[in-house]
Amino acid sequence: MISEKMQEHVKNSSIIRAMFEEGKRLSAIYGVENVFDFSLGNPSVEPPQEVKEAILEIVNHENAISIHGYMNNSGYEDVRASIAASINHKFGTAFNQNNIIMTVGAGGGLNVIFKTLLNPRDEVITFAPFFGEYKSYVKNYDGELVVVSANTATFQPNLEEFKTKINAQTKAVIINSPNNPTGVVYSNETLIKLADILREKQKEFGTDIYLISDEPYRELAYDRVEVPYVTKFYANTIIGYSFSKSLSLPGERIGYLVIPDEVTDSENVIAAANIATRILGFVNAPSLFQRVVAKCLDAKVNLEAYNKNRELLYHSLLSYGYECIKPEGAFYMFVKSPIEDDIEFCRLAKEKNILVVPGTSFFCPGYIRIAYCVSYETIKNSLPGFKALIEELK
Amino acid sequence: MISEKMQEHVKNSSIIRAMFEEGKRLSAIYGVENVFDFSLGNPSVEPPQEVKEAILEIVNHENAISIHGYMNNSGYEDVRASIAASINHKFGTAFNQNNIIMTVGAGGGLNVIFKTLLNPRDEVITFAPFFGEYKSYVKNYDGELVVVSANTATFQPNLEEFKTKINAQTKAVIINSPNNPTGVVYSNETLIKLADILREKQKEFGTDIYLISDEPYRELAYDRVEVPYVTKFYANTIIGYSFSKSLSLPGERIGYLVIPDEVTDSENVIAAANIATRILGFVNAPSLFQRVVAKCLDAKVNLEAYNKNRELLYHSLLSYGYECIKPEGAFYMFVKSPIEDDIEFCRLAKEKNILVVPGTSFFCPGYIRIAYCVSYETIKNSLPGFKALIEELK
Repeated sequence: MISEKMQEHVKNSSIIRAMFEEGKRLSAIYGVENVFDFSLGNPSVEPPQEVKEAILEIVNHENAISIHGYMNNSGYEDVRASIAASINHKFGTAFNQNNIIMTVGAGGGLNVIFKTLLNPRDEVITFAPFFGEYKSYVKNYDGELVVVSANTATFQPNLEEFKTKINAQTKAVIINSPNNPTGVVYSNETLIKLADILREKQKEFGTDIYLISDEPYRELAYDRVEVPYVTKFYANTIIGYSFSKSLSLPGERIGYLVIPDEVTDSENVIAAANIATRILGFVNAPSLFQRVVAKCLDAKVNLEAYNKNRELLYHSLLSYGYECIKPEGAFYMFVKSPIEDDIEFCRLAKEKNILVVPGTSFFCPGYIRIAYCVSYETIKNSLPGFKALIEELK
Repeated sequence: MISEKMQEHVKNSSIIRAMFEEGKRLSAIYGVENVFDFSLGNPSVEPPQEVKEAILEIVNHENAISIHGYMNNSGYEDVRASIAASINHKFGTAFNQNNIIMTVGAGGGLNVIFKTLLNPRDEVITFAPFFGEYKSYVKNYDGELVVVSANTATFQPNLEEFKTKINAQTKAVIINSPNNPTGVVYSNETLIKLADILREKQKEFGTDIYLISDEPYRELAYDRVEVPYVTKFYANTIIGYSFSKSLSLPGERIGYLVIPDEVTDSENVIAAANIATRILGFVNAPSLFQRVVAKCLDAKVNLEAYNKNRELLYHSLLSYGYECIKPEGAFYMFVKSPIEDDIEFCRLAKEKNILVVPGTSFFCPGYIRIAYCVSYETIKNSLPGFKALIEELK
């Protein structure tokens, strides 16, 4: 009795659900401390102290009707003004509150912008490997996700192939840097070239192509690597941001879209995104957490904890013979599977109580994703398993 | 450059936006205390004290990673178990946590269930007058909203016409009691007849027809009127609930769906609703407020404040010559426009600084909706304007 679209989803997702059940089963047998679950991107680092302080400050001192009440569907004006000012201060941009739409996390924001832009059969291009939900988000509005295959040498986007996939139906391109699942940060050079191609193709086809930059990991970058602000490279850029990882608040569903005035038809895009927020049933981003994040725009999670995990895992895996690009951001490592069949490798890893996700789920077979947002102990205790795995496969 | 569907929305909504701007303009000229804004269903009564206590208790004593983190897309198991137990206790039902899916308010819940059920061109029946967003929610999934015209004698649903509108394409029926905009509560008798018709038509067409009961106003009922629990009348019932009004938390976007085991194909409906929550970009209902509402299931807002407004407004309007069914629930009064053209009446009311919404917006021309979730002072001070209005029109 469920819709045809959902029947497919239920069929496919039962495989993933079976994996989770397996994890639970293993924990019950071996104890949760002996199961090494690297499958989920759930932050392991506490929210910064400022979050708790902000909640207490607001709840104790502000008017309850206004902190929990309706506001403009795009969010509180003062919160949006604070966010715009903060971005301007950090990146030298010139946004104001009208360019900011508060969203129910990045997932909510991407749905709002796809609802705003896509007609049936419009194409959205992305680069493998990518967060698999993009496919569902685009399909929700009857668009088509077009995938550019991975450049496994650097995991920077494959721009030569990209050129060949742009056509008159291309409505948007979605990028994600720091990247899930590779941890790669798109360089200035990459963004300059990407923007050049887009401008050229806009001219060639007489169309507008929106570049959507999905940035939930912007704040998680190591070794002082710079994560360029994408609106500076290309006028038709829309940013999707989330506080899920930067403040370790993934369950609270709080983020925002930036729709610059430079975007083609910006007034209508902004008005439509406001309405899409309402009619998709979000109505508005959660009100208390709008006010909380506005007080925490300079707060930082303990990045050093993730960095310690990254260093230990990266150097250990390399010393065992694994191959991997050192991630510069996010909390994922995308490791070459020692055997061609990444799904089989994940099965073998599970026999060692190690849970990782096959690259196939990110449209890049032959790799596995390790989410290292776990305790340092978990990393340390999993290492003998990783070592034994590759030795047995040699 | 925005999608065709959104172009229509932007065109239509700009009329409403113009109304809001007008309200702001009036406030600037005459002072906010001299403008009587009855246009919005934003609770005017504070959340009960238990809400603040619950927030402080959780934030001060529970683990920050788990209160702000990801959980099952359907919500925390313990929260869902508490809600199921509370419903069972109040209504003698037999739900468990698997029947409960936490949602981003009622708007989020309705989108989840329509995404779950509707194929393109499936029909969803509702009864005028109704909350206009239903049309957008159904259209989001390419369904068709079929409207049964109003029974203006009682504003109970027009069941004779209803029978004639059910066909093989009818996938769902959506009802809303206590009702926005009339304040009417559907009686036991109404629900018994409605259920009989649905069962008969299911048999006639060999189909399943889901009855979706949208219940954000369940807790707002006056004069000890009973709001029947709809799952008891008809097996294929799904409940959409929200804490927005019962706890005065509309900005926090927290509610739930109840999908009983008795529903046809319930296992798949539940699984699909879980996935729909994820892929629509909600991901999960806001985490802190899931935990907050679980601690406030017996908390109540100050209903007497709304009741006082209701009594004053109802008796005053009647004494001036207005016609209106006395609302038994919610915080709306649906008053017959003294002139046929309800939009023109709203324009005239605005000249007296009274902002009300035309019944046309609820697919029931000739009436106006007054949202009396305002201060008692606002009601009192608006009365001379209402009196003058009808006198000038006589």
